[in-house]
Amino acid sequence: MDIENIIFKHELPIQLRFNDVDTFGHVNNSIYFSFYDLAKTDYFSSVLPEGMNWKETALVIANINADFISPIFFNENIVVKTTTTHIGNKSIKLTQLAVNIITNEIKCVCQTVMVGFNLKTQESAEIPQSWKDAIMAYEAESNIS
Amino acid sequence: MDIENIIFKHELPIQLRFNDVDTFGHVNNSIYFSFYDLAKTDYFSSVLPEGMNWKETALVIANINADFISPIFFNENIVVKTTTTHIGNKSIKLTQLAVNIITNEIKCVCQTVMVGFNLKTQESAEIPQSWKDAIMAYEAESNIS
Amino acid sequence: MDIENIIFKHELPIQLRFNDVDTFGHVNNSIYFSFYDLAKTDYFSSVLPEGMNWKETALVIANINADFISPIFFNENIVVKTTTTHIGNKSIKLTQLAVNIITNEIKCVCQTVMVGFNLKTQESAEIPQSWKDAIMAYEAESNIS
Amino acid sequence: MDIENIIFKHELPIQLRFNDVDTFGHVNNSIYFSFYDLAKTDYFSSVLPEGMNWKETALVIANINADFISPIFFNENIVVKTTTTHIGNKSIKLTQLAVNIITNEIKCVCQTVMVGFNLKTQESAEIPQSWKDAIMAYEAESNIS
Repeated sequence: MDIENIIFKHELPIQLRFNDVDTFGHVNNSIYFSFYDLAKTDYFSSVLPEGMNWKETALVIANINADFISPIFFNENIVVKTTTTHIGNKSIKLTQLAVNIITNEIKCVCQTVMVGFNLKTQESAEIPQSWKDAIMAYEAESNIS
Repeated sequence: MDIENIIFKHELPIQLRFNDVDTFGHVNNSIYFSFYDLAKTDYFSSVLPEGMNWKETALVIANINADFISPIFFNENIVVKTTTTHIGNKSIKLTQLAVNIITNEIKCVCQTVMVGFNLKTQESAEIPQSWKDAIMAYEAESNIS
Repeated sequence: MDIENIIFKHELPIQLRFNDVDTFGHVNNSIYFSFYDLAKTDYFSSVLPEGMNWKETALVIANINADFISPIFFNENIVVKTTTTHIGNKSIKLTQLAVNIITNEIKCVCQTVMVGFNLKTQESAEIPQSWKDAIMAYEAESNIS
Repeated sequence: MDIENIIFKHELPIQLRFNDVDTFGHVNNSIYFSFYDLAKTDYFSSVLPEGMNWKETALVIANINADFISPIFFNENIVVKTTTTHIGNKSIKLTQLAVNIITNEIKCVCQTVMVGFNLKTQESAEIPQSWKDAIMAYEAESNIS
């Protein structure tokens, strides 16, 4: 799917920290993933307001694939946009953008595959139907395949 | 290329920090990329002992693709193994593993595409031939395609 | 000076990150100092909107003294309050509080002594009079001794 | 007590990370505290090899007081030296140095007061006698007051 055509309902402004920036004046690439992490947490709080029942099934990260398009500087206003672009039996895929909210420049595109994990049996698990329904309900204008 | 068949000459033991670990007792996924970053820096110091001439051409990260295979806990002995698996005109690809050095369990596989970047013209640039030669010389038993 | 009597004009809400929190569910103590750092940067931007002339004189941290009163949890709304409590010839002292903005609970009190530093001579330097004036003007209801 | 006269039995070499360093090329001051944290964890593992019984009593940080003497650069070899300089009924004080192991230059001196905390009653608690004994035994040439 072309990124231009994806609809992002969820946005989280990111507060940059002084030591996010490396000696080149750029936000270090490893820091981006703490932004995506924070946005993921906030996204799932919005999608499932009563919370996930992490006692039984958890979502764990299986794959992260990120395209770094242009550097982020300390004085930029960055938001992370998050949506779900695929729901499978045992996995979901999130697509996230780091965007300068003033210029609309896309700084980085990140796709994350998360898989269901049963904390009792310590084995992979199906995504609960209630989660699928909640995601589909939240992402009304769906990007989901 | 199958990871099992890749030869890693460069290894860097990683010192875990107390706050690398999240509430689940796992090293947070964003922290892995600071390990890979550190190993990259050390790798290029080994490959090019006299240093890269960053004044003219820099290497910037274009893509990171990481498979998270199993979690890292605070008390584990982790090394990052780094090699070059592709050299192109304007890019190189590094393959890195995070491995428990006691059990040899592969925790995470990461591929990073880095592209040449001319700091004066602020445009993409060819990888200097001297760098290609140095990488080929270092990686004597070559994984490089 | 009693903390209760200090007036804080400058407040910065802090966005907690998922991996600020350690295995005990508390924000790790080292992370507090990145909050204070960020608030310091923002404070000086407010006090000296046209910027400090860091080319000549810089402010470097000489001492940090922090009282940890109660832990910060991930779901708390934290602001850092910053003020100047002392201006000397070659140093200034900042007092900063980390506060839960909902309950007004003071989580941590931090005092930081910063000293002037001449970047050319690499020696300690007097605080420029223009900075002192700007701080005094900003902190109209002064806590400054 | 004069720092020159303190005997440090426990030393931990620190692996600097690429993004420990800020735009000035210095290790950011907030990062020092993750070094001290790591060294503390290692120190208590050495002092109490069978582990603290954190189920009952924990040690929590009450105060941190750090003197920043000179900056740390990325290519320096840093060790953190840790010792106990005071044992009270309900608290202990650690003194820690960050030192360039090549030049013996002291970069930073940090004193941390940790207090006993009963996790069941959520109140301050006496330091267990077994911990005091273990610290006294470890610090044979005692700095402890």
